[in-house]
This record gives sequence, C-alpha cells and structure tokens, in this order.
Amino acid sequence: MANVVLINPFEVPEEQPDEAFLAGWQQAAEYLRQQPGFISTRLHRAISSDATFRFVNVAEWESPQAFQQAVASEGFVQLTRGRAPGHPALYEVVRTA
Amino acid sequence: MANVVLINPFEVPEEQPDEAFLAGWQQAAEYLRQQPGFISTRLHRAISSDATFRFVNVAEWESPQAFQQAVASEGFVQLTRGRAPGHPALYEVVRTA
Repeated sequence: MANVVLINPFEVPEEQPDEAFLAGWQQAAEYLRQQPGFISTRLHRAISSDATFRFVNVAEWESPQAFQQAVASEGFVQLTRGRAPGHPALYEVVRTA
Repeated sequence: MANVVLINPFEVPEEQPDEAFLAGWQQAAEYLRQQPGFISTRLHRAISSDATFRFVNVAEWESPQAFQQAVASEGFVQLTRGRAPGHPALYEVVRTA
C-alpha cells in the first residue's frame, strides 16, 4: 500500500505560548520517529494569530496500521496526555497541481 | 521571503458526494494555478469516513501577498461562492523530523 499522510490541525489555547506547545510536540516527535513505519514529519505554524489552527502537523507513515500502532502505544499515550486538542486523521493524496 | 504554505481543512457536509467537492476544487485549482505566486497544491482525502475534515488542501505560494491577492480576486470569489466551508490559513514550517 502507498504511504499515508497524517494531518493534525491543533487548536492551541490562546494563553499557551508557542514554546510550550513546541516542547511537547518535539517530545512526541522524538518518540514517533523511533516507531516502525514513521517516514517524516513537518510542523507548520500559522503566520497570522487569527488562524483557527495555530499549528498543523503533516507527517508521512508507511501504512495506517503503523501509525495507529504508534499512537496507541502506552509510551505515546503517556507523553501526550493533557496536550492541546488536535484533529488527527489519515489521508491520501487525490489531486495535485 | 521564504515560500508560505496554505493549509485548508474542509468540512464537507455528509450528503455531498466526493465527486461534487472534487469538481469544485478542480475548478478553483485551475484558476489559482494561473495566478502570480502559485507554486503547487496537493489535495488530501481522509481515508476514514469519521474524520472531521474529509478533504485537506496543502499548497505552496511565493508569499502571503500573492495568495491573498489571488483569493480576493473577483474570479476566485465567484468560483467558490457557496462551496464547502474551509479553514484556510497561511503557515510556515517550524520543525521537521
């Protein structure tokens, strides 16, 4: 199966500084990059402060199963407890221009 | 200035078939690719039907100004009137792994 794309738009509470979010994200990313099936990840920060989603993560995984196993692991669940709520979902590219 | 990334998660109403959304997206993409500053675009479709955002568009533009001029143009406004609501915002990449 082709790679899948994980897209996770995060609604970061206004009172949370970028640095706090980034530190948490970095920890989670370090963990995930060591899991089987991880390919790459890019974290995007909104340029304007009125964006609905201040951060959006776009990552590539080898398969839906690999991603789901990684985020269901005890290590990941513990790392991300209480973090800014995201809307993670897996995608495939259907059009390019 | 470095390129910017436009990320647009679309909440597509359940009753709207993929084909209707895709036809509209294609029209808008054809228009935008002819505007100054457009670099590329990738449309992602959620693998699972319970994703909050069924489609997510990720595009690259040369600058915030170029993107804003393109979407404020009369042609674009007319093309996208009444379309599925998105959450478009401009981003820069702040972390990679």
